[in-house]
Amino acid sequence: MARVYNFNAGPAALPLEVLEKAQAEMLDFAGTGMSVMEISHRSKDFQAVIDAAEAKVRSLMGISDDYAVLFLQGGASLQFAMIPMNLRREGKAADYIDSGSWASKAIKEAKVSGATNVVWSGKEENYIRMPKQSELKLTPGAEYVHICSNETIGGIRYAEFPATEAPLIADMSSEIMSRVIDVNKFGMIYAGAQKNIGPSGLALVIIRKDLIERTPESTPIFLRYDTHAKEGSLYNTPNTWGVYFVKLVMDYMESLGGIPAVQKINEAKAAALYEVIDSSDFWRCPVEKESRSIMNVVWRLPSEELEEQFVSEAKKAGMIGLKGHRSVGGIRASIYNAVPRAAVDALISFMKDFEAKNG
Amino acid sequence: MARVYNFNAGPAALPLEVLEKAQAEMLDFAGTGMSVMEISHRSKDFQAVIDAAEAKVRSLMGISDDYAVLFLQGGASLQFAMIPMNLRREGKAADYIDSGSWASKAIKEAKVSGATNVVWSGKEENYIRMPKQSELKLTPGAEYVHICSNETIGGIRYAEFPATEAPLIADMSSEIMSRVIDVNKFGMIYAGAQKNIGPSGLALVIIRKDLIERTPESTPIFLRYDTHAKEGSLYNTPNTWGVYFVKLVMDYMESLGGIPAVQKINEAKAAALYEVIDSSDFWRCPVEKESRSIMNVVWRLPSEELEEQFVSEAKKAGMIGLKGHRSVGGIRASIYNAVPRAAVDALISFMKDFEAKNG
Repeated sequence: MARVYNFNAGPAALPLEVLEKAQAEMLDFAGTGMSVMEISHRSKDFQAVIDAAEAKVRSLMGISDDYAVLFLQGGASLQFAMIPMNLRREGKAADYIDSGSWASKAIKEAKVSGATNVVWSGKEENYIRMPKQSELKLTPGAEYVHICSNETIGGIRYAEFPATEAPLIADMSSEIMSRVIDVNKFGMIYAGAQKNIGPSGLALVIIRKDLIERTPESTPIFLRYDTHAKEGSLYNTPNTWGVYFVKLVMDYMESLGGIPAVQKINEAKAAALYEVIDSSDFWRCPVEKESRSIMNVVWRLPSEELEEQFVSEAKKAGMIGLKGHRSVGGIRASIYNAVPRAAVDALISFMKDFEAKNG
Repeated sequence: MARVYNFNAGPAALPLEVLEKAQAEMLDFAGTGMSVMEISHRSKDFQAVIDAAEAKVRSLMGISDDYAVLFLQGGASLQFAMIPMNLRREGKAADYIDSGSWASKAIKEAKVSGATNVVWSGKEENYIRMPKQSELKLTPGAEYVHICSNETIGGIRYAEFPATEAPLIADMSSEIMSRVIDVNKFGMIYAGAQKNIGPSGLALVIIRKDLIERTPESTPIFLRYDTHAKEGSLYNTPNTWGVYFVKLVMDYMESLGGIPAVQKINEAKAAALYEVIDSSDFWRCPVEKESRSIMNVVWRLPSEELEEQFVSEAKKAGMIGLKGHRSVGGIRASIYNAVPRAAVDALISFMKDFEAKNG
């Protein structure tokens, strides 16, 4: 069995140690004589899993008791719908920053149900940077300000988060737990698990408890944050396998030394890759330096033909997932927490060879 | 490693062959060098998985092209909200049959958003049977009639489904693919996967295509059936592990000879268990014979103390999940498709011993 170097944008690489642990206990979880998928979500064995997952997320991210931590389903896309349903009250408006493909999807969904102000858009510049504070046309009295903190497709992220009077809500799907952030600056943080913290089918929601009380009476029960907060994410059967995996990934994060240690590794991986890209005119990163993501590194080659050749030869060399998103083209290396330094080094070495042969 | 006999109500037993297959390819799915959780949902490898899952569900259940088959998230509970949001238009009413705990949950959710007529309720009789056709007070012009076809907690199921003019919608979570049904009699069938067809975190939705067109414009994008139908359940990242498991369970179903063969096995398992229960006054099944479920068999003992003792001694003997739901008490054996005949035989033998000692 040859494991490949996995640069997929999501679903993405999982830590090998985590996969091996899950494999080992697939038929008998914690001495129950059952797979973790076969035990009741109401059992004390599963309660221990979800409690540990929540406690570890809280501890790693430094989340206070002012916030609820929820494990929901439907990915970030369901959150695009739930956020305005719960947090934008009748007759009020919400602010959205349009920084790329994912921010746009959130905006499109918010517009279906109410007043949605786009307070800045990078669209005309082809989404090559995040906005400066001075560029934001924030709405006085807005219910919240929504951002996508790291755009998976555009390869951009906020070096500094916007300062807002209204609660700041961030889709952190593609950078959750990749760098130290101050949760207290946010009203809500959410993330589909499938990039940095687990498999697909699970969304992590971190929400300030006072915001949960906003939800209008007319909101369907299942789509209310308070429904899930009151029941500790067990209002209905959660994605138990996904919660279990998050717990295992959190164990792994702890073993590495927590988010500060992981951030250092991530910054070094990204710096090494950007250094190669910047070292020659053969490669070109379209993103402004200040906004460069340390999770999704995007770049171009001199021609689309060379880009195709690059992706295809990389694949033969055991490096998967390097094709840029179909909407923008080019190359993208997603170097999430679980992508080892060795994968980045292999990619760099492959790039140098490729340039020598084709440059 | 000792596997137990698993009578959990859900999440529940999975076929051992399926778990072993998933275990074997955990680090390298189909020669990709990645776990199935690590591959892109847009890759051709995953497309092959979801296509096979859908094709096998269609073939096993005999689903025509008049229906869309969707793999969604949020379990049956999200469907409780999506059904009225999509299928009950402004100013119209929907009919619901109240047959127990799960039907009631669907009703509670439907009432949040519009006119909900309860056309029969078994509540005053403690939900010991399904209604007769003549008892239903169906609403002329109703948008649909909703039933829970098998009540997991009450242990009742329809021997024959209601005849309705409005499209019939059935929550089949706890009996999907356990017996042959004629899909054409339904407007929509849905099921949380975690009882008969996979792990939790996935819902199977089978919906007549003309109904999909009803959805009001004001419905959030993610919560519209047409959103997911247009994109073949890939509007956003699905629960890829869950879809993969459904595919493996369908392989297993095919290997047994399909639903007719599985139904025979299920009926024999249930008959053997009911035979013991009916054989003596020591055991008492509260359910009317006509309505007895072949998936969830519930019964009482002469006292609550004996029931506790039964559950506790069964557990020591390697039989898990026999405690009745906390809302009704008693004993419940969930004998889903993946619960082998050997488990039922072991339970029967344990019951005979228990009665001999305590009767």
